[in-house]
Amino acid sequence: MKKREYPLGKVYGLLEPGPVVLLTTEREGKANVMTLSWHLMLEFEPPLVGCVVSNRNYSFEILCETKECVINIPTIEIAKEVVACGNVSGRNQDKFKKYGLTSESSTCVKPPRIAECYANLECRVVDTRMVEGYCLFVMEVLKAWIDPKKKWPRTLHHRGYGEFMVAGRRLKVPSKMR
Amino acid sequence: MKKREYPLGKVYGLLEPGPVVLLTTEREGKANVMTLSWHLMLEFEPPLVGCVVSNRNYSFEILCETKECVINIPTIEIAKEVVACGNVSGRNQDKFKKYGLTSESSTCVKPPRIAECYANLECRVVDTRMVEGYCLFVMEVLKAWIDPKKKWPRTLHHRGYGEFMVAGRRLKVPSKMR
Repeated sequence: MKKREYPLGKVYGLLEPGPVVLLTTEREGKANVMTLSWHLMLEFEPPLVGCVVSNRNYSFEILCETKECVINIPTIEIAKEVVACGNVSGRNQDKFKKYGLTSESSTCVKPPRIAECYANLECRVVDTRMVEGYCLFVMEVLKAWIDPKKKWPRTLHHRGYGEFMVAGRRLKVPSKMR
Repeated sequence: MKKREYPLGKVYGLLEPGPVVLLTTEREGKANVMTLSWHLMLEFEPPLVGCVVSNRNYSFEILCETKECVINIPTIEIAKEVVACGNVSGRNQDKFKKYGLTSESSTCVKPPRIAECYANLECRVVDTRMVEGYCLFVMEVLKAWIDPKKKWPRTLHHRGYGEFMVAGRRLKVPSKMR
């Protein structure tokens, strides 16, 4: 899908609803991808995001070393791949190849963007104080991409053990909140 | 609605999908409520939750002082009240009264539970290291309550400026993930 750059000040609206995301990392030219949904916004602009990456995951050591990742937001069309990426380790296999995911070059970081995801956030780790204790990495989003045709993405929201809530209908209530 | 106690080990499944929540606090017998959706899970059991409570909010100073709150999870039935609670300060008014919310006594903390919310998590602040810098409070959920009749709660997921995604349909994909 063809994507355009997305304003950094609007990134919070993509993550605040709580979608499952695919995190890509890269080390020595080898890309990896993992599934996670323990994340939150920490600042509007520049957008800061907190992500828990368990130290039992292969991505944990790559992230500690390289301090770079891409947060890719998938939709229901690749639900099977999202779950599969969360169920195996990338230590001994190439999950891009195994699950037919297409990698696209990022512009600010080395890890690739996943073409099949409707949004991609290129990130740099800016604070590791909470890695000890909570495995919580604070990232700054350097550049964001979105598929402009995906007006109402059917994101996945994990409820545990492979049960997901799929993004439903739109509700608008007049509000002064950002 | 009549609620029963909910196992602490299952609490992550309530917050991981990213619902908007109502946070109640109390000081000197006066309860307050605010709306937020910048939160994430940090541990399964005992459940640890991270919540951003901006220092521009009245609840911020109460939370710093009392170290107690209840995370209440609302559904679409009270969407108007959820937005209203996010648009005014409790400094000079009683939002429970103003918006017709019913307070119920908690069992482990002083702040009340909101009767109209299908789930309530009684919490104590256990780590304030990230309050400076990110206004991020780490809470432990001490006791959880749920309406057992609400099998598929239509939670609200904020996309910015009063636009919400309402929890949609269920999707199950075989998975080894918790």
